[in-house]
Amino acid sequence: MIYGSLEAGGTKMVCAIGDENGKIFEQVKFPTLTPEETMPQIFDYFKSKNVQALGIACFGPIDLRKDSKDYGSITSTPKKGWSGYNIVKAAKEALNVPIGFDTDVNGSLLGEITYGCAKGLTDAIYLTIGTGVGGGVMSNGKLLHGMLHPELGHIRMPLLKNDPGKSICPFHDNCLEGLTSGPSLAARWGKTADLLVDNKEVWEIEATYIGTALASYVLTLSPQKIILGGGVMHQEQLFPLIREKFKEALNGYVVTEEMDHLEDYIVPASLNDDQGILGALKLAIDAYAEK
Amino acid sequence: MIYGSLEAGGTKMVCAIGDENGKIFEQVKFPTLTPEETMPQIFDYFKSKNVQALGIACFGPIDLRKDSKDYGSITSTPKKGWSGYNIVKAAKEALNVPIGFDTDVNGSLLGEITYGCAKGLTDAIYLTIGTGVGGGVMSNGKLLHGMLHPELGHIRMPLLKNDPGKSICPFHDNCLEGLTSGPSLAARWGKTADLLVDNKEVWEIEATYIGTALASYVLTLSPQKIILGGGVMHQEQLFPLIREKFKEALNGYVVTEEMDHLEDYIVPASLNDDQGILGALKLAIDAYAEK
Repeated sequence: MIYGSLEAGGTKMVCAIGDENGKIFEQVKFPTLTPEETMPQIFDYFKSKNVQALGIACFGPIDLRKDSKDYGSITSTPKKGWSGYNIVKAAKEALNVPIGFDTDVNGSLLGEITYGCAKGLTDAIYLTIGTGVGGGVMSNGKLLHGMLHPELGHIRMPLLKNDPGKSICPFHDNCLEGLTSGPSLAARWGKTADLLVDNKEVWEIEATYIGTALASYVLTLSPQKIILGGGVMHQEQLFPLIREKFKEALNGYVVTEEMDHLEDYIVPASLNDDQGILGALKLAIDAYAEK
Repeated sequence: MIYGSLEAGGTKMVCAIGDENGKIFEQVKFPTLTPEETMPQIFDYFKSKNVQALGIACFGPIDLRKDSKDYGSITSTPKKGWSGYNIVKAAKEALNVPIGFDTDVNGSLLGEITYGCAKGLTDAIYLTIGTGVGGGVMSNGKLLHGMLHPELGHIRMPLLKNDPGKSICPFHDNCLEGLTSGPSLAARWGKTADLLVDNKEVWEIEATYIGTALASYVLTLSPQKIILGGGVMHQEQLFPLIREKFKEALNGYVVTEEMDHLEDYIVPASLNDDQGILGALKLAIDAYAEK
């Protein structure tokens, strides 16, 4: 059985085919232009591979409410041409197979839970810190949607007195994304992350915001593990610093065994940046099983 | 069939008996002294009523992990005599009936979901703002435990420049509980909440912190409704102010129908302060059904 997997991002679309064991046979990429330019070649690709179901892990915000008339749509993105585009409906019409659908970050989390470092957990978080900051959440064994879906990058943060920058989020003057995303680092320090590796102050401030946010996620979502991915998190020196700042933010209030082993609790993504495509594969497998 | 319901608080223990329809037949209260002084009379009460199961909604932190050797214990409370006390084990030994167990705030939420204003929802929050600040969470149709259980009152907040006070939480110098609980109001303004009703600045600051925290809960937990209870929330003038500050904190980032009807989204507890005892009753009913 061949399943299709689409990691739909604002910059590129990653397409793959794989099997029910999480084996990926091939991957192709297309730049994300307009839906009219981009989607037909993607659907042609999956059609030519004769996929039995397709999973889509999609940039957002998206409408995930199964009873909504707009289920499957990308809602209010500033990305030209995509606001209101119903990617699930289009895929269904083009391929006529079951379509699984969730956020890009829920997809990455599902990849880690099915095939990676969070295997078997019922409550976990995947946070990506890159061009933006976003997070996927599994809660009580299911990906969390609730009213909409989590938007972990936009919680308000206490500002640090020694922070020379300010939020670059157009919505919030002190949210996590505005203070810690890759573009925020570049705006604050005048260079991209890879050119700032030796500047300790950069990572001290970055880790304080991230560690404080993770503490808030623990106090709200109570995850059994937190996985950090995205471009900024390729700076491996951040991990020990984030664990230290996280501990300072909780300050001993949460007492569990996990808190004594933070190196196993706050961890890097484990699937070589394939977590998204593997999660979308699992969305396809689940959609096929449910049909 | 008669079920027992115990709302175990740090100040008082409320005991009730009721039926599977949520009808409460009687309620009695005992002050919370030490376990040795308090618990035998409670168990005697329930024994005399011949309850078929008991639900306990308990102050915490508590151990909710069913596979833990300490399942049913109150863990690290400063309350004298209660740290390490296993209330479930003691109840089981005394009554020999199925025991349901959860946090006090999860109990209140369960009451509202079963019998009150959140009926039928799968994702909701109950936040109490009183002597302390705590919250119960339902996620994907189940009360949220995860690693431990949520501790919504301890997320870190951006401090307001015009706030004349400071956090009274011994753990955190800028957490929600430290800034908005009843004792915090009293410390900040030199009077208790009921004597501050006419001071607009008090409620402006209080509502800003609460509204900002609710925005963070929406961005993390994505609830379909937020219910506010506890002593401070008896100040009804807070509700419109909180909704306004909540809206300012999100600043249009989350677009759903619920956001256009905040008067139905951020609401007062609906069960005349019986939400806890009704939730504990439901814990008993569920424990009996599962036995």
